[in-house]
Amino acid sequence: MVNEKNLTWVLRKRPVGDLQQGDLELVESALTQLEDGQVRAKTIYLSLDPTNRIWMSDVDAYLPPVGIGDAMRGGGLSVITESRFDGLEPGDIVNTGLAGWAIYNTLPGASLAKLPKLPGVPLTAFMGPLGATGMTAYFGLMDIAKPKAGETVVVSAAAGAVGSMVGQIAKIQGCRVVGIAGGADKCRWLTETAGFDAAIDYKNEDVGKALDKHCPNGIDINFENVGGKIMDEVIARLNDFSRMPLCGLISTYNATDPVPGPYNFSNLLMRRTLVKGFIVIDYFPRFPEGMQQMAQWFMEGKLKYETDIVDGFEKAPASLSRLFEGKNLGKLVVQVSPEPV
Amino acid sequence: MVNEKNLTWVLRKRPVGDLQQGDLELVESALTQLEDGQVRAKTIYLSLDPTNRIWMSDVDAYLPPVGIGDAMRGGGLSVITESRFDGLEPGDIVNTGLAGWAIYNTLPGASLAKLPKLPGVPLTAFMGPLGATGMTAYFGLMDIAKPKAGETVVVSAAAGAVGSMVGQIAKIQGCRVVGIAGGADKCRWLTETAGFDAAIDYKNEDVGKALDKHCPNGIDINFENVGGKIMDEVIARLNDFSRMPLCGLISTYNATDPVPGPYNFSNLLMRRTLVKGFIVIDYFPRFPEGMQQMAQWFMEGKLKYETDIVDGFEKAPASLSRLFEGKNLGKLVVQVSPEPV
Repeated sequence: MVNEKNLTWVLRKRPVGDLQQGDLELVESALTQLEDGQVRAKTIYLSLDPTNRIWMSDVDAYLPPVGIGDAMRGGGLSVITESRFDGLEPGDIVNTGLAGWAIYNTLPGASLAKLPKLPGVPLTAFMGPLGATGMTAYFGLMDIAKPKAGETVVVSAAAGAVGSMVGQIAKIQGCRVVGIAGGADKCRWLTETAGFDAAIDYKNEDVGKALDKHCPNGIDINFENVGGKIMDEVIARLNDFSRMPLCGLISTYNATDPVPGPYNFSNLLMRRTLVKGFIVIDYFPRFPEGMQQMAQWFMEGKLKYETDIVDGFEKAPASLSRLFEGKNLGKLVVQVSPEPV
Repeated sequence: MVNEKNLTWVLRKRPVGDLQQGDLELVESALTQLEDGQVRAKTIYLSLDPTNRIWMSDVDAYLPPVGIGDAMRGGGLSVITESRFDGLEPGDIVNTGLAGWAIYNTLPGASLAKLPKLPGVPLTAFMGPLGATGMTAYFGLMDIAKPKAGETVVVSAAAGAVGSMVGQIAKIQGCRVVGIAGGADKCRWLTETAGFDAAIDYKNEDVGKALDKHCPNGIDINFENVGGKIMDEVIARLNDFSRMPLCGLISTYNATDPVPGPYNFSNLLMRRTLVKGFIVIDYFPRFPEGMQQMAQWFMEGKLKYETDIVDGFEKAPASLSRLFEGKNLGKLVVQVSPEPV
């Protein structure tokens, strides 16, 4: 095993605007001996998330940027191949949280948790409803927005990994749910599979008019994933005492010029809106609570999900762009190695 | 008394940008007979507030706009001159809440509360620390921002009626308090009289650099009264888990073009900031709690205040501009009739 080669995507340059070829470089290295307490984790699924792009920029974000010359940071599911840590043994499957974009990661075993045994639950569910994106949706909606039955919830990037869960959890809470997504296929999936009350195709519809049509009683909750003009249209229709979990602003992550905030910012005052920025890592201590609830709903068949699987580790950087082009339906992952049988 | 004339400022045109002569007209009328349950209240102090300007515009604000041809809406302190309501008699002084810009208002007695008897407390205090602006400061800071000792609080329009109270309450809570105001006189008042730790003169200082200097540990609470570029500078320096009561955006109320929101809106996400719009009328049911606490602090000498008194009812519209030009120190009022002796 020690003679096996590793491959790692290393950050070479900070991208300006869209990620370009050459910003990341695929580097081969040898595996080293494990030290006491360490494990070797072979990536099965590498998670691609909008926040990856944030980490590449030298901005004051919620985590330090990835250093130039360092392995690109990412999460995923891995199988243990070697262990010098008592709690884990080869064959165990773990959530690697914040590791590197690498085939093999050498990690402190104490930082990893084995996936819970849930009979009949596919591994991909742990990248979606039962993974970080599911926890993001659960805590952002339930802890910040606190939906009440009968309220109207709008979610942007609705066919993405987070948005699709937000809408389905809101339906379980008895809300009217309107999703905003790009393209007829995604919108059909939202209403026909995920049970949304309505879906707005921002690429082919006037979002403002569609919101007027589908939110006749205004908007009580805006789960914000996107920012920009779509956010303006939603903010313009917020109800008094509305809530707006601020989860992502993907429309701005590739921007090279200063991005103006919402043009109707004053409506947040007039409507007495609560806006709350949050990052899912703030909720780590409460993950067991979220996992338990989401697993229950999942096993009851209430959470539909899609996994958009790209095959081949070498495609990771190019595939990240799919998120910013709105090409993915559901959770975007790279299959780096096969699921253990 | 019925033969006495009344004077009322009536809204004739919706102002475009700054309030212009002719937008309001002073109209003379006769007083009518009271009906059962009504009282006649003669205005002593008419309150001038930034929100007056909001009410003149046909925008979707927190109250309907004042109708064209209707009396301009405003609050103040009045003395009862006639009563057909059992709980009030001539000579009683009441807070008129939302009445008209008029010398006499005819009002349902049940909508009015007599000022509490607080020995040695001047009447003007009920327009400041113990009035609506004091309640705005108290609930915005204590209920939304929840200051903790040692935290850094920044307040804009700091020498205004709300801002000056926010800073002093925050000092009572053990916070470091930095005020932003326009002009050396106001800044001197903030540090020398009101006990602020520092004051930034936005008319003569680089606000960003001054914030860096006076907030070495970042900003935990931004009590926002102004909006625009000053807000951008503050948002750029917010700490993780910061709070931002959104009380006013006076820099935008006279705008004729769409106003971009904060250019660093994404920092509200990265810092996990809580932004909460609020309007003091939402706290009406809790006014007794706020009054009790503010009165206690006031009588302990912990709340300094200034009243900027304009003499003469006919000057009300022109005086409102003082708020938007940053000319007032403390609570701006028009003295309409003398305090009863």
